[in-house]
Amino acid sequence: MDSHGLSTRLSIETLHGSLTDPAISSMNLLNELIDEYPKAISMAAGRPYEEFFDVRLVHDYIEAYCDHLRRDRELDEAGVTRTLFQYGTTKGVIADLIARNLVEDEGIDVAPESVVVTVGCQEAMFLVLRALRADERDVLLAPAPTYVGLTGAALLTDTTVWPVRSTGNGIDPDDLVLQLKRADEQGRRVRACYVTPDFANPTGTSMDLPARHRLLEVAEANDILLLEDNAYGLFGSERLPSLKSLDRAGNVVYLGSFAKTGMPGARVGFAVADQHVAGGGLLADQLSKLKGMLTVNTSPIAQAVIAGKLLLNDFSLVRANAREIAIYQRNLRLTLGELTRRLGGLAGVEWNTPTGGFFVTVTVPFVVDDDLLAHAARDHGVLFTPMHHFYGGKGGHNQLRLSISLLTPDLIEEGVARLAALVTARLP
Amino acid sequence: MDSHGLSTRLSIETLHGSLTDPAISSMNLLNELIDEYPKAISMAAGRPYEEFFDVRLVHDYIEAYCDHLRRDRELDEAGVTRTLFQYGTTKGVIADLIARNLVEDEGIDVAPESVVVTVGCQEAMFLVLRALRADERDVLLAPAPTYVGLTGAALLTDTTVWPVRSTGNGIDPDDLVLQLKRADEQGRRVRACYVTPDFANPTGTSMDLPARHRLLEVAEANDILLLEDNAYGLFGSERLPSLKSLDRAGNVVYLGSFAKTGMPGARVGFAVADQHVAGGGLLADQLSKLKGMLTVNTSPIAQAVIAGKLLLNDFSLVRANAREIAIYQRNLRLTLGELTRRLGGLAGVEWNTPTGGFFVTVTVPFVVDDDLLAHAARDHGVLFTPMHHFYGGKGGHNQLRLSISLLTPDLIEEGVARLAALVTARLP
Repeated sequence: MDSHGLSTRLSIETLHGSLTDPAISSMNLLNELIDEYPKAISMAAGRPYEEFFDVRLVHDYIEAYCDHLRRDRELDEAGVTRTLFQYGTTKGVIADLIARNLVEDEGIDVAPESVVVTVGCQEAMFLVLRALRADERDVLLAPAPTYVGLTGAALLTDTTVWPVRSTGNGIDPDDLVLQLKRADEQGRRVRACYVTPDFANPTGTSMDLPARHRLLEVAEANDILLLEDNAYGLFGSERLPSLKSLDRAGNVVYLGSFAKTGMPGARVGFAVADQHVAGGGLLADQLSKLKGMLTVNTSPIAQAVIAGKLLLNDFSLVRANAREIAIYQRNLRLTLGELTRRLGGLAGVEWNTPTGGFFVTVTVPFVVDDDLLAHAARDHGVLFTPMHHFYGGKGGHNQLRLSISLLTPDLIEEGVARLAALVTARLP
Repeated sequence: MDSHGLSTRLSIETLHGSLTDPAISSMNLLNELIDEYPKAISMAAGRPYEEFFDVRLVHDYIEAYCDHLRRDRELDEAGVTRTLFQYGTTKGVIADLIARNLVEDEGIDVAPESVVVTVGCQEAMFLVLRALRADERDVLLAPAPTYVGLTGAALLTDTTVWPVRSTGNGIDPDDLVLQLKRADEQGRRVRACYVTPDFANPTGTSMDLPARHRLLEVAEANDILLLEDNAYGLFGSERLPSLKSLDRAGNVVYLGSFAKTGMPGARVGFAVADQHVAGGGLLADQLSKLKGMLTVNTSPIAQAVIAGKLLLNDFSLVRANAREIAIYQRNLRLTLGELTRRLGGLAGVEWNTPTGGFFVTVTVPFVVDDDLLAHAARDHGVLFTPMHHFYGGKGGHNQLRLSISLLTPDLIEEGVARLAALVTARLP
């Protein structure tokens, strides 16, 4: 039956190691569990608010982009249709519009040549890690807990991730220095440190301004890249400058997402990589070469949708999201208020108080695992995310993440009430 | 300046090896050259014909898909907008429609669960290679010459590719058996063999029916997967059954593209992977796990565009492409006729005679390198692709690829005339 002696009959043990990594398996189990209880109130999914979705907008955005091509780029009708229908340049066709948005909303001033438009921020993370991970010595630093998408991109590129301690003020610069020293001693090469300074997923925490400056100083002194993920920065009661806007030494690669500010269904994100690569132009050019081998280019129709939203809102997603920002702020206040009302003063029950974003971290004096989540879904009709999923199984065992983005006030009141019933039943 | 001793200052030598691979660098040079001579007649680009592109179609396709969601899936308006706007299931939202298309056009009958919708066929290739490449023993077999996208996906996943001899009847099954034996002797593990049985890129050659059966027998006897890439199968004067439709033993993973038959700008492709994985459901489920870490999901708006085209053409892309098929057939006949008229009977000048697809291979009695291409562009105003780019630098040094898909009859006549002027000037 097997004439050449090495059976390739498929078994999960013979496939790439990422497929049996506990992080991936656990996220898969989590998604299955959520699907199993569609009627439970979900404080688990970090999806944007849906009330203002309207199919008409897709058409309007595409037309706005076509008008822009005709008017500002002076393309004839064949040029317009070719831009939408045909293969496009690997770096993307809307890099210039994204650069204008970055000036408008983030105070980041970069040349369009340093922007690579990607299939969501997830592809941007993959491309950066694929470029940086050359051999087994290479290490990526990342706060613990960290975003699962980062863990996924690291798994696909066989990148070793070392955790850095995270506090209520974001990544701990002292521990970062310690980890750099440790890497040096062990002959490892730290290629970058991943950070989410604004309303991080999963914790909801942000870094204050001094912490941002301190982090940039550490990065510059140690000559490492910072990979800044800024998916939630727009959704705060006050906004602090991004690392990229403060970066003077060229240490920051900016990972952009339009999933929360533009439209998840467009699957458009980007990387800003204006670093010079000896022998290879901009880092963006190297990412583009990798992208050509991965997805060729990001759908220009999907790019047109995001471009149209930018064009119809004078390049400001802050303005475009005024209603959504107000709703997320209201939901966050309401969730924190309900937590106080239902769980305030209980021994060992705590939560942080983010001023923006989609997430709140709740700490309880008992173990929060997937069994507890199954129990919550089945017997209390409420869903959340056990925080240990974001620690690669090495922490967060008595914490859970609440997501506030997709809910109405009624559902938040009822959801927190159900969570409180679960929590109080577990207290001694 | 560098306190931890291991400089991460970026240099292309310290980045991932794929970025300095000759295959990638040469393709980049090629693209730059093509950009440099925009007025030359391009017989280089393998892009679909553009005459029937119309922005209105994008809107019509999206609306047709929304109508389908309302009518056939019985979604309310919130459900329709959520499907388009929100994050979607990783495997894709149109797998059922793709399965119907495969029955209609290809005689392939598979469950939608075995389909993974991807960001073009390129992502499908990456996912399959990423799943199969577990360690350095693993080898992928592929015909020489082979599609550059396959080479790229192999580079990104650190997959070793061994060439298999290719003839005018496709991959040579005897050499395939030899390579399997060689791998066995060297303790390597052959995970799969990549093949394009229909009008392959770059050669334009196809396998006849006996060769398809013989290849399936070899795959079954040796227990290897065949990765069947079928981007051009629709564009022939006669159509032969795909390997997947003939596959009884489950050896074939089908890699589907809508770039030529649907719309390049949608960037939608798919993999059909109905193989059972011990400990892991279908191979499609494993590919989906990887995709979740790479691009999360394919834009549902892009999927809607392809779905709409399927829905408005009774699921047949053969019917949808009736005009394009006629044009490609005409262009192919015309190109072959002009080659005979201009170069027939010249010693050492030959070409193959594909009955479909986008490409013709021309052999000449002198070296075809990038310098010759630059000379052709500059002094003769015609562009082609030196075939050595598809051999990883190890062959094809006196061959060139002509692409016929994007041209009008006038341009074909003029393009071949210019090529003939170049060729005759080089003959002894």
